[in-house]
Amino acid sequence: MAGNTSGKLRKLREILAEVTDLSRAAAVLEWDQETYMPPGGVEGRAEQQSTLHRLAHVRFVSDEVGRLLDDLEGEVASLPHDSYEASLVRVTRRDYQQQIKVPTDLVEDIARAGATARPFWEKARTDNEFSLFAPYLEKNVELNRRLADALGYEKRPYDALIDLYEPALTTRQLEAIFAELRTAIVPLVSDIARHADAIDDRFLHADFAPELQVKYGMQVVTQLGYDLERGRQDISAHPFETSFGPGDTRITTRISPGFFNMCFFGLVHESGHAMYQQGISEEIDRTPLWDGASPGVHESQSRLWENLVGRSQPFWRHFFPSVQSTFPAQLRGVDEEGFYRAVNKSHPSLIRVEADEVTYNLHILLRFELENEMLEGKLKVKDLPEAWNARFKSYLGIDVPNDRDGALQDIHWSGVSFGIFPGYTLGNLIGAQLMEKVRADIPDLDAQIEAGEFAPLLAWLRKNLHQHGRKFTPNELMERITGKPLAAAAWIAYVRRKFGALYGLEKD
Amino acid sequence: MAGNTSGKLRKLREILAEVTDLSRAAAVLEWDQETYMPPGGVEGRAEQQSTLHRLAHVRFVSDEVGRLLDDLEGEVASLPHDSYEASLVRVTRRDYQQQIKVPTDLVEDIARAGATARPFWEKARTDNEFSLFAPYLEKNVELNRRLADALGYEKRPYDALIDLYEPALTTRQLEAIFAELRTAIVPLVSDIARHADAIDDRFLHADFAPELQVKYGMQVVTQLGYDLERGRQDISAHPFETSFGPGDTRITTRISPGFFNMCFFGLVHESGHAMYQQGISEEIDRTPLWDGASPGVHESQSRLWENLVGRSQPFWRHFFPSVQSTFPAQLRGVDEEGFYRAVNKSHPSLIRVEADEVTYNLHILLRFELENEMLEGKLKVKDLPEAWNARFKSYLGIDVPNDRDGALQDIHWSGVSFGIFPGYTLGNLIGAQLMEKVRADIPDLDAQIEAGEFAPLLAWLRKNLHQHGRKFTPNELMERITGKPLAAAAWIAYVRRKFGALYGLEKD
Repeated sequence: MAGNTSGKLRKLREILAEVTDLSRAAAVLEWDQETYMPPGGVEGRAEQQSTLHRLAHVRFVSDEVGRLLDDLEGEVASLPHDSYEASLVRVTRRDYQQQIKVPTDLVEDIARAGATARPFWEKARTDNEFSLFAPYLEKNVELNRRLADALGYEKRPYDALIDLYEPALTTRQLEAIFAELRTAIVPLVSDIARHADAIDDRFLHADFAPELQVKYGMQVVTQLGYDLERGRQDISAHPFETSFGPGDTRITTRISPGFFNMCFFGLVHESGHAMYQQGISEEIDRTPLWDGASPGVHESQSRLWENLVGRSQPFWRHFFPSVQSTFPAQLRGVDEEGFYRAVNKSHPSLIRVEADEVTYNLHILLRFELENEMLEGKLKVKDLPEAWNARFKSYLGIDVPNDRDGALQDIHWSGVSFGIFPGYTLGNLIGAQLMEKVRADIPDLDAQIEAGEFAPLLAWLRKNLHQHGRKFTPNELMERITGKPLAAAAWIAYVRRKFGALYGLEKD
Repeated sequence: MAGNTSGKLRKLREILAEVTDLSRAAAVLEWDQETYMPPGGVEGRAEQQSTLHRLAHVRFVSDEVGRLLDDLEGEVASLPHDSYEASLVRVTRRDYQQQIKVPTDLVEDIARAGATARPFWEKARTDNEFSLFAPYLEKNVELNRRLADALGYEKRPYDALIDLYEPALTTRQLEAIFAELRTAIVPLVSDIARHADAIDDRFLHADFAPELQVKYGMQVVTQLGYDLERGRQDISAHPFETSFGPGDTRITTRISPGFFNMCFFGLVHESGHAMYQQGISEEIDRTPLWDGASPGVHESQSRLWENLVGRSQPFWRHFFPSVQSTFPAQLRGVDEEGFYRAVNKSHPSLIRVEADEVTYNLHILLRFELENEMLEGKLKVKDLPEAWNARFKSYLGIDVPNDRDGALQDIHWSGVSFGIFPGYTLGNLIGAQLMEKVRADIPDLDAQIEAGEFAPLLAWLRKNLHQHGRKFTPNELMERITGKPLAAAAWIAYVRRKFGALYGLEKD
């Protein structure tokens, strides 16, 4: 590049580094709030967070950044799409446009509406009384619509919202994917339901000492490749992963003293997120490129490690002896095969966050449809519980006994957040699609996993996915890495094969 | 005030709130770094801190703040000195002047010199080789001089530096105080040395389970009045107190598994700091007034609780039964009187941070004299160890066997920090001077302490000192609260009385 370009690029990076530092400081404060902050800290912390976010926003949407992007866009046009310079300008422009399109008063309305609605959602859920929350949800639907209008869209308002999270994905693409999932999975779920007693997981519901659960889980995830020189683990009410840069990516966990899966698979899941962050190239540190490509792609990494690795047979061939010797009383008389089967028990259930691998996507399908229908005015908020329950029965075959375990269960709709849910399903699909390619490139993957060797898999993910950060959109990544568009096929084949075998469905 | 004034004041407070939030965010990041941050986080954290401090500084020294202060100074002139408005403008102006007087390149030189010198100081100390550190100390002395010149002073360069920490105190005032201390304490120390075997504290050097030490210490400090709804305790290599606002003031501790005093008195000390912060009026939150009046005044609160309360006979009349039942094996055969005597054992020692109540100020006197002599060119850096050792012998009566335990022991001189040390002694003196007034106002203080009632003492400190934050200088505070200038008399009378009794010196 010409000297002038590199000077402008340096200036842009300087501003972006400042914005990144402010955002990372805010993330440290958020982590502290969820783990250690005393109750009295709430008010002061809200002020500190508000100041950090405001300063980061003001700096980022400044005219100076706009001018630098204008100048640099012409200059990087001749560089390859995947060069760091072209990617930086392209992705920064995308973020910039999104942020400047939303007027300040709408940003404030959205923040205020979320803060106002939250306690009413909590009360509605506690009291199992949807009508307490309905007026606030109506307001939030309206704000989702105003947000979509501000961002702009060609065909469907949901396009604008999904683009905030999963760049370049469309409502139409998602509808096609979900239709395919629905067709494949609804019958699989009912097949499994008819063979429910094929798997017994009662021994997982026993007393597991919390400290031992964490200690064992952390041993496993460090073996998978989560680097604790650049990370740590703490306890929080809701598990999460957070990163303050290449050298500091943390996870939290919660523990059920009476159920093995919560802590263990939670740790593997969050470590999947953390290993993604730990693998992003330091070359793009302190820029908008230094993060996961999207929530969906991020979720592909947590779900890949949690399910495609952590709930696989070779994984438990390796780890069963150690988990059994860690919990000898609880796992007396259990064998490796029985343990593998138990951690994969599938059964339709009411609550998304407790859903198993097969049924999970149906919970998302339902929310995706309902969000779209509310956004497009086809479903009135007051009719949401009825629509929820009817669709739940049709997809998962069970009756929803109350709104607390139905339409009121998720915190998401207490804020303006339409478009987030599909990321969970995209994560499952992308994970399976990547794994298909991994298996082609590493033919003895299962033997490696059975031997407790995870370095080749992690190296593959680093090379093909992690290092790139936000350089590419989810669709671009799938094309680049797998040579195919993002689709449901790999995941459908995977669950049919795995759960067909587990539940003896091929014999039907 | 006129409407225009209140508008300007509102604007000033808005800017100061932003600066405060940035500084508090930096403090959270610092706390995290000292307690939980993984090793890999160092580099990124340095960048985040640098950004936060830079943004806070730039915002604070802006012309806008200068203009607002100019405008407001005339307007608040008619308000009482202790009004919140007049105090805010006065103290903000003082901070502002100090910050704008120091040129950016000097600020950078100071930051760089500290970062450069630190590893050489560490190596010099490890290798017990002063000459490795000498060139860096020379540089730091020169930078202390440049800093004093930039800040300006009438008579002595040290005046400019001490004013950074202890506003309005002068070198002359400190010299008079230290001369009085020296005259009184040097003979007391040698008297005590001749009666060294009057106190046996060997039982304090036993195995005390770390978790129990912390648990017991935290029980005690919450009883003293440290509010854990607005605070918490963690472990760190060097104990400290830090505050992110009225609702969140934290302490850390370190534990020696083989010595009772470190954790226990460390917790009481840091809680003394924390209770000060927790007592500052919320009215002045998010302004430069919301902090302790000075490091010296802050230290008065930690030392008052640690020594004047925590090492008093009534205190152990109350707590001895519980400490004995917490550590029954270690304290078998010990009685309340013996315990009280043991925690007060005084003996000249090499290391400041381990020094007892009597000898501590002599360690500071030595440093105050040497800093001044180096600053004024009367002592060459290469001659520092010799001067240190000679003076140590003269004040404390012991030979310094090596520079590691002599002139190289403190981290302070690895940075540009002349003027900080006197605050430790001021803390001792102010604590004793306040306590004299407390005893006049609360005649049955000892009976209250013996009954485990600390609320009246804390309420007195809140009302007379804590609530005011930085409104007043140390000298102003002493005049306001005790009706006397800051002086050594109360502390000298206190140690003579207490240690005279403990060591039977009145019988000499």
